[in-house]
Amino acid sequence: MDINKHYLELEESYLFSTIAKKINEFLKNNKTADIIRLGIGDVTLPLAPIVVEAIKNAADEMGRQETFKGYGPEQGYMFLREAIKKYYTRKNVFLDVEEIFISDGAKSDLGNILDIFSLNNTVLVPDPVYPVYVDTNIMAGRKIIYSNANETNGFLPLPEDKIKCDIIYICSPNNPTGAVYTKDGLKKWVDYAIKNDAVILFDAAYECFIKSEDLPNSIYEIEGAKKCAIEFCSLSKTAGFTGTRCGYTIVPKELVRQNSMLNKFWLRRQTTKFNGVPYIVQKAAEAVFSEEGQKQIKENIQYYSENAKIISDTMDKLGIWYTGGKHSPYIWLKCPNNMTSWEFFDFLLKNAEIAGTPGSGFGKNGEGYFRLTSFGNRERTVEAMKRFIKLF
Amino acid sequence: MDINKHYLELEESYLFSTIAKKINEFLKNNKTADIIRLGIGDVTLPLAPIVVEAIKNAADEMGRQETFKGYGPEQGYMFLREAIKKYYTRKNVFLDVEEIFISDGAKSDLGNILDIFSLNNTVLVPDPVYPVYVDTNIMAGRKIIYSNANETNGFLPLPEDKIKCDIIYICSPNNPTGAVYTKDGLKKWVDYAIKNDAVILFDAAYECFIKSEDLPNSIYEIEGAKKCAIEFCSLSKTAGFTGTRCGYTIVPKELVRQNSMLNKFWLRRQTTKFNGVPYIVQKAAEAVFSEEGQKQIKENIQYYSENAKIISDTMDKLGIWYTGGKHSPYIWLKCPNNMTSWEFFDFLLKNAEIAGTPGSGFGKNGEGYFRLTSFGNRERTVEAMKRFIKLF
Repeated sequence: MDINKHYLELEESYLFSTIAKKINEFLKNNKTADIIRLGIGDVTLPLAPIVVEAIKNAADEMGRQETFKGYGPEQGYMFLREAIKKYYTRKNVFLDVEEIFISDGAKSDLGNILDIFSLNNTVLVPDPVYPVYVDTNIMAGRKIIYSNANETNGFLPLPEDKIKCDIIYICSPNNPTGAVYTKDGLKKWVDYAIKNDAVILFDAAYECFIKSEDLPNSIYEIEGAKKCAIEFCSLSKTAGFTGTRCGYTIVPKELVRQNSMLNKFWLRRQTTKFNGVPYIVQKAAEAVFSEEGQKQIKENIQYYSENAKIISDTMDKLGIWYTGGKHSPYIWLKCPNNMTSWEFFDFLLKNAEIAGTPGSGFGKNGEGYFRLTSFGNRERTVEAMKRFIKLF
Repeated sequence: MDINKHYLELEESYLFSTIAKKINEFLKNNKTADIIRLGIGDVTLPLAPIVVEAIKNAADEMGRQETFKGYGPEQGYMFLREAIKKYYTRKNVFLDVEEIFISDGAKSDLGNILDIFSLNNTVLVPDPVYPVYVDTNIMAGRKIIYSNANETNGFLPLPEDKIKCDIIYICSPNNPTGAVYTKDGLKKWVDYAIKNDAVILFDAAYECFIKSEDLPNSIYEIEGAKKCAIEFCSLSKTAGFTGTRCGYTIVPKELVRQNSMLNKFWLRRQTTKFNGVPYIVQKAAEAVFSEEGQKQIKENIQYYSENAKIISDTMDKLGIWYTGGKHSPYIWLKCPNNMTSWEFFDFLLKNAEIAGTPGSGFGKNGEGYFRLTSFGNRERTVEAMKRFIKLF
């Protein structure tokens, strides 16, 4: 028996455990400290009333013989896939329902999609990066190369002809940097992918924070993208589903590699290794896409967006360089006074009792940067920014 | 870009589509036909009242700021893992909560567990078999060998010293045969696995149908099993969760291969590629394991078990050889008059208007056998058996 030895190559991430440890130590020595946590990557507002109602109605259906639902289609109920198809048309993206796969979240699908690709492919991920892109490929033993996201390119690297790769990860609006690609930027990646026979894995988990008509919510707003991109999206940040688990993945039928439709490969993967999302959760997701549902969730997105604006306005006022904040719940700032990410973490904790996330935890290009998030409470966010202003 | 070419080696399963096609054709030519479907592998009774209530209460919690839950632990909430730990003690199996992983179902985990093993391993599956064991390994490119389940061994093959393998699939009570290993039988597999440094993947999805104290519900009732076995279980058949999606996987800490704890590997797999089961579903599952929950679900299991008894009593009366039916929802019968599986399907449909599942759809050893299931309605099951008796 051989184990998968690639697991031994994984590095343990001590980022969030180190943060927790440092906060606990600080609290031990400063018993009256009033720490504001702006490092949180999870939503805090409750599910919308229409969603709660949908779950309860679905639970009642499951409790009655006549309306009980057993196994559903692995790729999701048609009512939800139709709702998502309709959601996409708002930006003139037209999908076939068979191109839409319902999942328990973007994280699962971003990992599982790799099943359909050869282990010989070279993977291109940006640095800094959401660690899941890297770890899932280390586990499989694929070669990973990095594109440089930095201050010069606004943390939005563009393709370079000399770099050859097969699988390209793009997250826009980005986690952790909050930077958003324009249509022109994405077009360059689409052209590169088509030219190099590569496939783009496009993580659109934060698309709902985009407030400009001109910025792309979906990569399929870009001509040619259906021939080279798979898109992952989630209700986690859109509708507070981090603990309710529902996402969706788009695999266009036009996406063909080595004479095989990747749509058919993914369908086979999901029907073999997955049994669908709970009916009660799919009904909850359907409610999100209803007219009233969209109205209700937009209030929550608006709340987080205003928090983000409060933070980014403060950075503007203080002249601190940053990305994100406008079309993203994340603000990625350059640590003042050339501090390293951890130096700034300690400095901010000690002098303002604010906890954020050191950028170096997301890759070497994150060194010297720091992530603040807008998922906290309004009053606390306002208070945190007052402390920021006092500090600088 | 290279695709995973192993996907091209997968055979399309036409089993259930062919059944549907044949039934439709029959109905077209026999408009007044009253077909009884005893091929169904899905539960039909609704969720227990206490489970529905738990979902509704959890939905309310998710709708209030103070009780809202975002990301939960990927491996499941402690309240549910504690409940499962307690459930196992009824048969004197003592687990550490860290050995229990909550999942969205046994099918997902049975496929995903393969991530932690090398592609070089040889896999042993019984024939006939639940097709997922085979397809997930074809997808990964592993070598698959088969053990012969047949009338001589009661469809419960035992290990053979001359056969060398690394990963062993055992499903008991079995799908599709309904056969159940005794403790002695499982002990032989455990001894073989330890001797050969192999790992057993034990699928216990149908354990709740076991009615004898002497038969093992869990492989961990066998001495040594914690050193060589991973167990998969599900609430699908236990509590009607086929459309609600919750299962659990046990990876003992004692299970070490090549100096690595597989428990740590699986934890890393799940924290990287999975984001946990919905809170509302975990609360539903917790209710199943409560005292009242166990009482309520046992009524449903009893209902299916009585259906199974009605079918197996009929086979006894007619002198038709079969396995299952006593500790399983499945009855696996030898086709009368040496008919092939499909011949018997056509014969039964034409002459008794009963639809079942041809055994040959589960592997070459299934040829000449036929699967009936007890998940249908009582009156229809009784009526079907009346027709059977009339026919033979």
